[in-house]
Amino acid sequence: MVTRRTLSILVENQPGVLAKVAGLFRRRGYNIHSLAVGITENPEVSRIVTVVEAGPEETEQIIKQLNKLVEVLRVNDVTNHHTVDRELALVKVNATPGTRAEIMEVASIFRANVVDVSEKTMTLEVTGKGEKIDAIIQLLRKHGIREMVRTGQVTLVRGVQTT
Amino acid sequence: MVTRRTLSILVENQPGVLAKVAGLFRRRGYNIHSLAVGITENPEVSRIVTVVEAGPEETEQIIKQLNKLVEVLRVNDVTNHHTVDRELALVKVNATPGTRAEIMEVASIFRANVVDVSEKTMTLEVTGKGEKIDAIIQLLRKHGIREMVRTGQVTLVRGVQTT
Repeated sequence: MVTRRTLSILVENQPGVLAKVAGLFRRRGYNIHSLAVGITENPEVSRIVTVVEAGPEETEQIIKQLNKLVEVLRVNDVTNHHTVDRELALVKVNATPGTRAEIMEVASIFRANVVDVSEKTMTLEVTGKGEKIDAIIQLLRKHGIREMVRTGQVTLVRGVQTT
Repeated sequence: MVTRRTLSILVENQPGVLAKVAGLFRRRGYNIHSLAVGITENPEVSRIVTVVEAGPEETEQIIKQLNKLVEVLRVNDVTNHHTVDRELALVKVNATPGTRAEIMEVASIFRANVVDVSEKTMTLEVTGKGEKIDAIIQLLRKHGIREMVRTGQVTLVRGVQTT
């Protein structure tokens, strides 16, 4: 069964690593739902977190392939772990003096921060699970979304365990 | 002069686009400092925000090359624009009953959220500019960082303008 699976991939922080990993997904025809790459506690190591649509066998295959890349230090399928999953979005919506209060109410419900205001727009910063971000976007849509950017999901396993 | 430049790239949401973009950076030898890819207000369009180390001429070259890819809809160098720049990090630190209060104080100063607690660890979620995240990590380091993940920077231009 094809489901969304979350892979946490530790890689050497070197030029070209992302291209290799992304190329591997492309050649295998995997659909990447989201991908985030950033440095870790060790500046020589980056962590790629990617959410892909794949079945269990496909996932096993891709992990095998990833492990063959010399720059890949460790791959973990954290899909069924107890995890903290977070994403950040910036959403710029149309706002007039008449609609600002309503938008601020929505922001407050979702604990979003207003990070910019202009005469015609407001920009909100919201963090949370993907579904929460989907929900606030749905509510803001009626005002007209001018522009939006999302980071892709990042994930850590809960408790003392590391991945 | 080589500086950090922020590129905002709108692409068709299709398998393989990220591989093409990352491959282009690799072939040109550009060092990617961070990269985030996520969907936009239009589900058929994704936005890649990448921070690269490059000079002005190199940046011009890379924009030209990116524009040649059919899946690339628009590229903007937003480095010198008035922007909202945000990043999200999850940081798991060692925590004992004796150090929890101190860690919570640091969290409070940086408006970070405690998103997980175990007998031996605490996990904080922090959002902000890269420098802010660097600063809290620096303060948490003395407790011992078990594990960390960062999303990479996302950026929107302030005000009514879109990119």
